[in-house]
Amino acid sequence: MPHIALNSDEPGIRGLFRFRPETARPLNELVEVLLRGPGTLTPGERELIAAQVSSLNDCRYCCSSHSAYAAAQLPGGMALVEQVRADAGSAPVSAKMKALLEIAAAVQQGGLTVTERHVAAARAAGATDLEIHDCVLIAAAFCMFNRYVDGLATVAPDDPGLYAARARRIVADGYLALLSESG
Amino acid sequence: MPHIALNSDEPGIRGLFRFRPETARPLNELVEVLLRGPGTLTPGERELIAAQVSSLNDCRYCCSSHSAYAAAQLPGGMALVEQVRADAGSAPVSAKMKALLEIAAAVQQGGLTVTERHVAAARAAGATDLEIHDCVLIAAAFCMFNRYVDGLATVAPDDPGLYAARARRIVADGYLALLSESG
Repeated sequence: MPHIALNSDEPGIRGLFRFRPETARPLNELVEVLLRGPGTLTPGERELIAAQVSSLNDCRYCCSSHSAYAAAQLPGGMALVEQVRADAGSAPVSAKMKALLEIAAAVQQGGLTVTERHVAAARAAGATDLEIHDCVLIAAAFCMFNRYVDGLATVAPDDPGLYAARARRIVADGYLALLSESG
Repeated sequence: MPHIALNSDEPGIRGLFRFRPETARPLNELVEVLLRGPGTLTPGERELIAAQVSSLNDCRYCCSSHSAYAAAQLPGGMALVEQVRADAGSAPVSAKMKALLEIAAAVQQGGLTVTERHVAAARAAGATDLEIHDCVLIAAAFCMFNRYVDGLATVAPDDPGLYAARARRIVADGYLALLSESG
C-alpha cells in the first residue's frame, strides 16, 4: 500500500503522476527526450540502460516496465533483456553497449564511481560524447525514478501482460501522449 | 576535468545544461516546481533537503550550491545549514523538518529504505501527504542531479562567493530565468 493517499488506483509511477501533475509534466518530458528523442542510441538500447539500472536498484515496477519497453524494441526481445540484467558482460550486445552499461552500473553506485577508465573504454568502443552524456543522465534519472516509486511504496502489479501492453502503447505513442490521457 | 568535451567553461551542472539544452529544459522545470513552486514548505526548507541529500552523496558542486540557496532563504543562514548537514537531529529546525530530513536520508540510501515508521513520524509531526511526496521527490531528484554532475566529472569551484552570488540570482529570478540566459 502506498505511503500516501493517492487519488487513483493506478500502479507505480502512474499513480504519482496523477497525484502531482505539476511534477509529472517535466518528468515525462525528460524521459521522452532521453529515451525516445533524436539520438544515435536506439530507443531499445536506451530502455535497456533504464531497465538495468532499475534492476540494480531492485525497483520492481520500473524494472518490469522498462524491461518490457526494451524487449518490445530490441530484436532479442525479453530473452536479451534478461541476459543483460543477469550479466551484461556476456550478453550478445555490442562492445559499445557493454561499455555504456558499465558506466550506467557505476552511476547507479554513485557519480564519483565513474572513472576515466570507464569513459575511455566506452570511447574506444565507439561511443560519442553525447552517447556517454545521455547514458550517465539516463542512469542518474532512473536512480531518481526508482527512489520516487519505491520511496512512496507504490504498487507493482505481478502480471507481465500489463507491462507488455503498456510497452505497445509507449512504442506507438510515447510517454507524453500517455500522460495527457491519464491527466 | 570533465569526462566529455563540453562547449563552455561553465562549472558543474551549468556546463551540462549548456551542452544538452534538450534535457536542461525539463530538468530546470522540475527543480523550479519542486523547490520554488507553490507549496507549504518554504523554498529555504526545500533547498535544505536538496543540500542535505547532496551532502550525503558527497556531491561538492550541488552541496555548495544548494547550501548557499538554502542559507539565503532561511533565517539561520549558513550556520543552520551546516548544523543540519552535520546532524539534523540536533539542529534547531522544526520536528516536521527533522522527520522530513530523515525521510530524505532514507531515500538517499534507496527507495526501499523508506519505511512506514518514517512516514508515520512525519505525519505525527504535522507533515501532509503532499509535503511527504515532495520531500521524497526532492531527495530522489538530487540523487539524479548529484550523479549527473559527478558521473561526468564536472568542475566545482572552491570560492564560496560564487555560490552565494548565484544564490542571490536564484532567489530573485528562479531557475528557469537563469537557464534562458545561459542558453
